[in-house]
Amino acid sequence: MDKKRYSKPLSLRSVQVTDDFWKKEMELVRKEVIPYQWNALNDQVEGAAPSFCMRNFKIAGKQNQERKAQGESYQEASYTFRGFEALPENPEHLEDKFYGFVFQDSDFYKWIEAVGYSLTQHPDPELEKTADEAIDIVCAAQQEDGYLDTYYILNGKDKIFSNLKDHHEMYCLGHLVEGAVAYYEATGKDKLLNAAKRYADYVKERFGKEEGKSKGYPGHEIAEMALVRLYETTGEEKYLNLAKFFVDQRGTKPYYFDKEQPEEAAKDPDGIRYEYYQAHMPVRQQEEAVGHAVRAVYLYSGMADVARLTGDEELYHACEKLWKNMTEKKMYLTGGIGGTHIGESFSFNYDLPNDTAYAETCASIGLIFMARRMLEIKPDSRYADAMELALYNTVLSGMSLDGKSFFYVNPLEVNPEACHKDERKFHVKPVRQKWFGCACCPPNLARLLSSVSSYAYTETEDTLFVHLYMGSKIQKRIGEQEAEIIITSGFPANGHVEIQVKGNDQPFTLALRIPQWGRQYKLEGAEDGAIQVKDGYLYVKKVWKEGETLKLEFPMEVQVLQADNRVRENIGKVAVVRGPVVYCLEEADNGKNLHLLTMDCSKPCTEVREEIAKEPIIAILAQGSREKLTQTDGSLYMPVKQAEKEPAELHFIPYYVWANRGENEMTVWVRRD
Amino acid sequence: MDKKRYSKPLSLRSVQVTDDFWKKEMELVRKEVIPYQWNALNDQVEGAAPSFCMRNFKIAGKQNQERKAQGESYQEASYTFRGFEALPENPEHLEDKFYGFVFQDSDFYKWIEAVGYSLTQHPDPELEKTADEAIDIVCAAQQEDGYLDTYYILNGKDKIFSNLKDHHEMYCLGHLVEGAVAYYEATGKDKLLNAAKRYADYVKERFGKEEGKSKGYPGHEIAEMALVRLYETTGEEKYLNLAKFFVDQRGTKPYYFDKEQPEEAAKDPDGIRYEYYQAHMPVRQQEEAVGHAVRAVYLYSGMADVARLTGDEELYHACEKLWKNMTEKKMYLTGGIGGTHIGESFSFNYDLPNDTAYAETCASIGLIFMARRMLEIKPDSRYADAMELALYNTVLSGMSLDGKSFFYVNPLEVNPEACHKDERKFHVKPVRQKWFGCACCPPNLARLLSSVSSYAYTETEDTLFVHLYMGSKIQKRIGEQEAEIIITSGFPANGHVEIQVKGNDQPFTLALRIPQWGRQYKLEGAEDGAIQVKDGYLYVKKVWKEGETLKLEFPMEVQVLQADNRVRENIGKVAVVRGPVVYCLEEADNGKNLHLLTMDCSKPCTEVREEIAKEPIIAILAQGSREKLTQTDGSLYMPVKQAEKEPAELHFIPYYVWANRGENEMTVWVRRD
Repeated sequence: MDKKRYSKPLSLRSVQVTDDFWKKEMELVRKEVIPYQWNALNDQVEGAAPSFCMRNFKIAGKQNQERKAQGESYQEASYTFRGFEALPENPEHLEDKFYGFVFQDSDFYKWIEAVGYSLTQHPDPELEKTADEAIDIVCAAQQEDGYLDTYYILNGKDKIFSNLKDHHEMYCLGHLVEGAVAYYEATGKDKLLNAAKRYADYVKERFGKEEGKSKGYPGHEIAEMALVRLYETTGEEKYLNLAKFFVDQRGTKPYYFDKEQPEEAAKDPDGIRYEYYQAHMPVRQQEEAVGHAVRAVYLYSGMADVARLTGDEELYHACEKLWKNMTEKKMYLTGGIGGTHIGESFSFNYDLPNDTAYAETCASIGLIFMARRMLEIKPDSRYADAMELALYNTVLSGMSLDGKSFFYVNPLEVNPEACHKDERKFHVKPVRQKWFGCACCPPNLARLLSSVSSYAYTETEDTLFVHLYMGSKIQKRIGEQEAEIIITSGFPANGHVEIQVKGNDQPFTLALRIPQWGRQYKLEGAEDGAIQVKDGYLYVKKVWKEGETLKLEFPMEVQVLQADNRVRENIGKVAVVRGPVVYCLEEADNGKNLHLLTMDCSKPCTEVREEIAKEPIIAILAQGSREKLTQTDGSLYMPVKQAEKEPAELHFIPYYVWANRGENEMTVWVRRD
Repeated sequence: MDKKRYSKPLSLRSVQVTDDFWKKEMELVRKEVIPYQWNALNDQVEGAAPSFCMRNFKIAGKQNQERKAQGESYQEASYTFRGFEALPENPEHLEDKFYGFVFQDSDFYKWIEAVGYSLTQHPDPELEKTADEAIDIVCAAQQEDGYLDTYYILNGKDKIFSNLKDHHEMYCLGHLVEGAVAYYEATGKDKLLNAAKRYADYVKERFGKEEGKSKGYPGHEIAEMALVRLYETTGEEKYLNLAKFFVDQRGTKPYYFDKEQPEEAAKDPDGIRYEYYQAHMPVRQQEEAVGHAVRAVYLYSGMADVARLTGDEELYHACEKLWKNMTEKKMYLTGGIGGTHIGESFSFNYDLPNDTAYAETCASIGLIFMARRMLEIKPDSRYADAMELALYNTVLSGMSLDGKSFFYVNPLEVNPEACHKDERKFHVKPVRQKWFGCACCPPNLARLLSSVSSYAYTETEDTLFVHLYMGSKIQKRIGEQEAEIIITSGFPANGHVEIQVKGNDQPFTLALRIPQWGRQYKLEGAEDGAIQVKDGYLYVKKVWKEGETLKLEFPMEVQVLQADNRVRENIGKVAVVRGPVVYCLEEADNGKNLHLLTMDCSKPCTEVREEIAKEPIIAILAQGSREKLTQTDGSLYMPVKQAEKEPAELHFIPYYVWANRGENEMTVWVRRD
C-alpha cells in the first residue's frame, strides 16, 4: 500500500455523462424510478403494499413537536420488538404508530442519495424542492439528542441498540449518511448532512473502544463505509475512528451478538450462525466470503476504506483474500454473487447453480462498491473487470428496459414452470416485479446508475484513471489548470474509445484500463507519450496538445467461454460473451426446452443488429443442434441410443435485456456439441 | 375390472422364503432391526433421543386403571395441542405425561407388524412373549369406549378428532390395524386385533355418510387400506364401508379441513394447500400425483383396495391414471418417488433432480403397496416392473448392509461437501443414520422386508402369479389338493429361475412375470403346457408331473439407459442397470469429482465379482474418460478449448450397496462421451 499513489473518485459535479447507453439508464432512473419511488415512500402506488416510510417520519416529527410543546421528555413505551409492523386488518384504521420493516427509514435515504446524484447530472428545481421538503420532514423526526430511527422513536426509545444484530439501526445510520453526503455534494445544502452528523455523533458517544462504551457493531453492514465517507466529507476524524472501531470489533470473542441473545450462545460457541453477518471471526482473519452476500460486500468495502485511510496492510490483505475468493470461486459469469437464496448468501466454493442462483442485484452493486475501493488503493484491472461484468450484466439485468420493474434475483437459467411449481425456485422470478415489500434493489439500482461515473473514474493529482469506458466530459484540476477531458465510447456496441484533453499544458497521465477481454487492443495517437502497461492499465504520460485525441480500439469480438470444471453445474457447457456483455438464450428466440440445444464451438458466430423492446442490441447467432423430444411409449427410461438431432441456429441476446418480452425460458450456459 | 379374475396375496404362512439374498435381508430385520427398534420404543438406545412410545402407553394404562379404581370418568385437560411434546430440559424429571410426536403410538404398531411377519418365517417364542407383553401394555391404554391414541388420552380426550388434518389419529388407527392383523395372522392371537376392531368401531360410529356423523377423513392416509384389510380379515363389511367413506369424502367441497382451520380457507378457496394431503379435489378426479409422496401412495393403495372390493371402475381408472402419471413422469430410475424435500413431495412432471431428490424409502415402500394392489386387480407387468425397481434399489438402499443404519432420503447424486455446507441439500445425507426422531423408514423397511413374499406372489384358485423371483417354498391349495411349489432364483446375481410343482395332479397355471428388461427370456420345460403371453405375464397351464421342473432364463445383461429428455437433469447422461439392479459410481472406486467422468456407450461393459462390506456383488466396468481438473491462473471462466481427457475405467456398483464404505461422492447418472 502506497498512500501517495491512492486515487480517489471524481466528484460527480466534475463529470457529465454524455454516453447514450448510460444516459438512457440515468434518464430511466430520473424519469421513472425516482418519481415512482417517491410515490412508494408516500404510500401512493396503487396496488402496492404501502411503505409507510414518510408516514413514520411524519408521525415521529409530530410527536416530537408535541413533546416539545408540552415540555415532556420522551415516554418509555411497552412494545414487542419484532422487526416488522404489518398493516392493520382494516387499512382505513391506521394508528399513529410505526408500520413497515425495521429498516423502513433507509428507503428514504436511498432515494435522497439517488436524487442527489441525479441533480448533478440533470438539475431539476422541482425535484430539489420536493427533496428539501422531505428533508424537513425527516429532520423534524430527529430527537434532541441526535438519535434518528423512527422504529425505535415510535416504539420505545428505551430499547435502542438492544438488537444490533437484526434491527438495522446502524444500517439506517449508514444510509442516512450516504444520502446526506450525496445531497450535500450535489446541492451544497447541509441540513440533512448535519442531521447525519448529529446521529453519527450520538452513536460515536455510545460505541467505541473507550471504557464504558458499547462494544457492539452493526448487524447489517454499511455504516463502516458511510462513516468513512462522512469523514472524507467533513474532515472529522472521529467518524473514521468509529468506522475503524466497527471493523476492528466485528467477530471478536466473546461475540457481542451473544450478549443480545445469550440463550443461543452455548449451542454454537464457534459462532457458525454469525457467518451470515460476517461476524464469526475477526475480519482480518476472514479468507472466505461467507454469509449474506450484500452484507459481505458492504463490509469489505468499509474494510477497504479503513485500510486505505489508516494504511492498515493486514486489513488490506484481508480484503485482497476475500476479493480473490469471491471472484475466483464464488462469482457467476454475470458478475453475480450469492449462490443460494438461503440467507441470500454465498454458497461453498465453486457451488454456482444457475437455476437456483440468488445473485442479488444489490450484491453486485456492493461488489462494484468494493471494486472501486480496491482500485483506489491499487489500480489493477482485475477489480475493474469484475466491476464491469457486474455492471453490464447483473446490475443492468436488475431493471427492465422501461425502468418500471426489477429483479432482485438474477438467475442464469430459468424454466418458468419450475419457478411457479417448485418451491425450491420460488425465489427465482421469470419476469421482473413492480416493486418489493423489502425494497432494496430498485433504490440501490437508482443510486448506482445515477452515480455510475464515480465508478468509471478515479484520479490522483496528475493522473486520470479510466476504469470503465463511457462517454463523458470531465473537468480535472492539473496543477494550476482546469483541464477538460472528453471521452467518447462505443461500449457496449463496439470497443471504440476516443479521449481528448483540452485546456492544459502540464504533463499529465491517462491510465486506461485494458479489459481482460480486450488485450489485443490498438492504440492510436499520443505517439510522443511515455507509455507503460502495468497491472492491466495502459499509462500514457505526456503533455497533451490542445485538442489532441487518443484513440483506443478494443476488439469486441464474440468469445465462447467455459467455466473451471470445479463448477459442477457448468460441466460440458459453454457461454457466449462479447466484450463486457454476457449473452443468453431466450425461449422467445429459440423455442421451448433450451436444454435440448447444443452449440458447436468450432463454427464461427455472426453478429446481428436487432431491437428488443425498442432497445438496439447486437444479437449473436451460433451454429448448433437441437435434440428432438423423446418419442416415448410412456417409459421414462429407455436403452441408450444416438441422440436424434437437427441443426439449429442459436440466437443469443445480451443477458441485460432478457425477460423484456414476457415470461419465458432463459439460459446463459448451453451444452456444447 | 373382472372380480372373478382378481388374485390375492399368499398368506405368509403359506410361503417360506428360502432365497439367500432375501433371507439375509429378513434376518437383518429379525436380528438387528426388530431388537433395536424394541429398545428404541423403550427409550433404551444410548445416544438416541428417547421415543417415549411404550412409556406413553404405560402412563395411559396406569391412569386408566386409576380412574377405574376410583370410579372416575375421564377428566378434561387443558393443553395446547402442538403435535410434539419435547423432552424436558432435565431428562431426569419426566412427568407422567405424553412425550414425543403426535404419531408416536404408530411406532409400536409398525414394530408389532414386522414382528408378526417375522414370526411366520422364523418362530421365536421369546420374541413372541415380548410382543404379547407389549400388547398387554398397549391394550391397557385403550379407553372403555374403544378410543386408543395416547396423545389425546394423555392430553385431553375432549379434543379428539379436532385436527384430523395434522394430528394423525387416523394414521395411528391404520397402523394399529395393520399391526394387529399381521400379528393375528402370524400367531392366531386376537387381543390386539380386538383392540383394533374396537377402535375402528369407535371411529365408525363417529364418521360416515349417515346424518349426524362427521364428514372428516384422515390427514395422513393409511387407514383406508388398513380398514380394507380389517374387513378382509374379519369379514365385517362395516370396515370396508368406512374405508370407502374416507376415500369418497376426501377432497370434496366444502373442504372438511377448512372447518378445522377456517381462517385459512378464504385465502385459498381452491385448496391448493391441500394438494399436500391429496385432498384438493375428489380422488376420482385426480390425475396427477401430488403432495407428500408417502401419503399419496398410501391413499392410492387404499383407493385400489376399495375399487377392487366394490367394483368401482371410476375409482380404478383414477388409480390407473395416477399410477401412469407417477411412473411415467415422476419416478426416478431407482423406483424412488418424491422429487422435492419441500413437503417430502412430488415435484412437477419430469422434475427429477438427482442431487436434491427426496425419494424417501417409505414412499417407495408405498409404491410397492400400490403396485401389488393394482396387480391383484389386473396382472400387468408394468406394475411389477416398478415394484421390482423400487424394491431392489430405493428400498434396499434404505438400509445399510449390517442392518444398523438407514436412509430416509435416497438421492441419485451426492457430493458430501454440498450435504454439509448447502442448506438446500441438508436433507440429503451422505451416510446412513442410526435412527430418526421421526422413525418411519426403519420400521417400514422392517415390515416390508419381513413380508416381502406377499409382494412376490398372488393367487387365484387355479393360478399362482409370480411377480418377483425369489427362492421360496409355497403351499397352495388347488381344488382338493395341497400343492407344493418350489422356486429357486438367482436374482439379482443372475436371471436363472427354476420352478417345481409337487403333490398335485390338477391342471394349474403358473403366471410368470416377464420383466421389462428380460423380454429375451428362454423357457425350458413344460413343453406340453398351454402357453400364453399376456400383459407381460407368461401363463403356463398344465397338469404338472410330480417333480417336473420349469426353467426360465432371463438375460441379466448390462444395459445402458437414458432418460426421456424432458427430464432436464439427465440430459446428455446415461445410467447403467443390470436386470432389476440400478448401478452407481462411488468415489471409493472412481476418485473424487465424479462429474468429470464420461462414459463411452459404444464400448462393451464387463462384469466382475466383488465384495462390498462382505456383501458379494457384481460390479460393472465400463470404458470412458476423465476430464482433467482445470489448470487455472485464478480465472473462473476462460476461453473454450477441447476438454483435456484421459481414458478412465468406470467402476459401477449396485445402487443398493452404496454408502457402505464411509462418506463419499456417488452418482447414478453419468455424462456420456
